[in-house]
Amino acid sequence: MVNFEKAGGLIPAVIQESGTGKVLMLGYMNAEAFENTLQTGKATFFSRSRNKLWVKGESSGHVLKVHDVLVDCDEDAVLIVAEQVGSGTCHNGYQSCFYRRVQSGTLVEAEPRAFDPDAVYAGVAPATKTRQE
Amino acid sequence: MVNFEKAGGLIPAVIQESGTGKVLMLGYMNAEAFENTLQTGKATFFSRSRNKLWVKGESSGHVLKVHDVLVDCDEDAVLIVAEQVGSGTCHNGYQSCFYRRVQSGTLVEAEPRAFDPDAVYAGVAPATKTRQE
Repeated sequence: MVNFEKAGGLIPAVIQESGTGKVLMLGYMNAEAFENTLQTGKATFFSRSRNKLWVKGESSGHVLKVHDVLVDCDEDAVLIVAEQVGSGTCHNGYQSCFYRRVQSGTLVEAEPRAFDPDAVYAGVAPATKTRQE
Repeated sequence: MVNFEKAGGLIPAVIQESGTGKVLMLGYMNAEAFENTLQTGKATFFSRSRNKLWVKGESSGHVLKVHDVLVDCDEDAVLIVAEQVGSGTCHNGYQSCFYRRVQSGTLVEAEPRAFDPDAVYAGVAPATKTRQE
């Protein structure tokens, strides 16, 4: 169904918000993370920096409730349509991790900040604040 | 602006259709492909199988005209909002490469076929028909 071996064990997973169609983030899944996503209905990634499974929102409460799972033609990328619980996906306080656009050779903010990351991640160890928590 | 080195030279690029918000495909870009995308306004990828730059649509005519380029918080993934010229993105004849969904443990078609790939890719060498052409 998905060819994890071809891609060295990890495939990119695009998260798209149900309803709005907004692309929220891109993470990586190994076979176990993909299976966990299907079984629990919560988007689960493999953290390359911490070398372990990571249920998105386990620190912040901002879980991604899975509505639909699509697989691409080459079976080496997935698209997860999900409901964003809480005010946003990005650890920097934005709805989407793609909150900046390229404009005249530089990056400019493309959406307003949606929440205060210091409040949401209060008490969370710095290492787990990164997107690849 | 984008950290290609961190990811070993290649970053994933998500293509989202302008207007509809439909996620059409995921490809990979190296620094040169990204620069070419910005300069020409046509989504350009690096083909891992052919080890060269690949302007999407150069065989099929189905180019992706870039409207917006967004970069994620970690600067190792990009989201390209683009206009799909022609009837679809996928070399299998669908609007989106993500044309199948996971349902009851198997893959089922999630959208109707949009065009006949044999007609669109007539005369194109088989090796260039793959998504990673």
